[in-house]
Amino acid sequence: MRMRNKPWADDFLRENSDVVISDPETLNGQWENVFTANQPLHIEVGTGKGQFITGMAKQNQDINYIGIELAKSVIVTAAKKIQDMGLQNVKMINMNADSLTDIFEEGEVDRIYLNFSDPWPKKRHEKRRLTHSYFLKQYEKILGGKGAIHFKTDNQGLFEYSLKSFSEYGLLLTDVSLDLHNSGIEGNIMTEYEEKFSSKGQRIYRAEVEWRS
Amino acid sequence: MRMRNKPWADDFLRENSDVVISDPETLNGQWENVFTANQPLHIEVGTGKGQFITGMAKQNQDINYIGIELAKSVIVTAAKKIQDMGLQNVKMINMNADSLTDIFEEGEVDRIYLNFSDPWPKKRHEKRRLTHSYFLKQYEKILGGKGAIHFKTDNQGLFEYSLKSFSEYGLLLTDVSLDLHNSGIEGNIMTEYEEKFSSKGQRIYRAEVEWRS
Repeated sequence: MRMRNKPWADDFLRENSDVVISDPETLNGQWENVFTANQPLHIEVGTGKGQFITGMAKQNQDINYIGIELAKSVIVTAAKKIQDMGLQNVKMINMNADSLTDIFEEGEVDRIYLNFSDPWPKKRHEKRRLTHSYFLKQYEKILGGKGAIHFKTDNQGLFEYSLKSFSEYGLLLTDVSLDLHNSGIEGNIMTEYEEKFSSKGQRIYRAEVEWRS
Repeated sequence: MRMRNKPWADDFLRENSDVVISDPETLNGQWENVFTANQPLHIEVGTGKGQFITGMAKQNQDINYIGIELAKSVIVTAAKKIQDMGLQNVKMINMNADSLTDIFEEGEVDRIYLNFSDPWPKKRHEKRRLTHSYFLKQYEKILGGKGAIHFKTDNQGLFEYSLKSFSEYGLLLTDVSLDLHNSGIEGNIMTEYEEKFSSKGQRIYRAEVEWRS
């Protein structure tokens, strides 16, 4: 459903390029000019309908956010949320996750959020998982070899895989929760998936990893 | 209860020094002479009543095992299991975990098992957790900077702490399961605690870490 062509979505994206940035590669190295304030840049890879990133942007006005999402139909929903909430510190990009280095200059990003990424459970699809070293290499570049990845998922297999992948890549695990919603966490902004799964009693897993200094 | 003085246990240990080794520090560097076969040495720190280590020793006749346990009352039970099963490849030591380097020469041990270790949940007792860097340093020495730690627990907090501690120490996470008994594992030998907790539907967590080569 997500991938189906939606002509109305194309029209919407064209008409709302102040929120969903078209030709993002032309802004490589200049993202601070897109925002009203020059402040740290956090991105979410796979932002879906935008509940997390808009919630974060509202909660943290001193951070700029960019949400990256391939599916046009859901990015429209996210863009509408941004408009409805009148948020100046969050933009969207309609693109695939595997060309991040075309969009961001080395060290231009300060933190990366991965939320409820597709688990790609089959071994032959391992390279598509957003915590595979193929993606970690790109994150490393745009983070400039510092900064953090914050990762949440309900998928046990993806979380186990990711812990191993982070370790193999040499990243430092600075925080981990194996049952986020029963861990006394404060200020957690939920994604749409997270609300749905946690309300059914499913565990949410969360990890923070950093590049070692 | 575990720490109470048991004179009958002292008598038993004295009379069964072929199984529960007395004066283990005199065997530093010479453990291979204690066993009938010269083969890899795996130790379990906190071996309790010995179900795990005797099960492992029976399953893997090509490995020598040493179980380390402070509580005399339970080490007696473990020793009786070894005798009843007629196992030649497993011995016990009645001692605290924090003098491993007095007992084993550098590189004398090939693998360390930690099963259902005391979680010491209070922050001020952090240094007593068997996955604290204080202990990892000792493990590193007796393993000679190679080899692996295999760790199981039902305690979520201890497991989260341990994943962070392993990462901070620079260890490589080679395997992890967040629900061991629903992970299609084969050949898993259960401890007494593990049988009890898993039969109640509680999750068992498991990790394998290695020193990076």
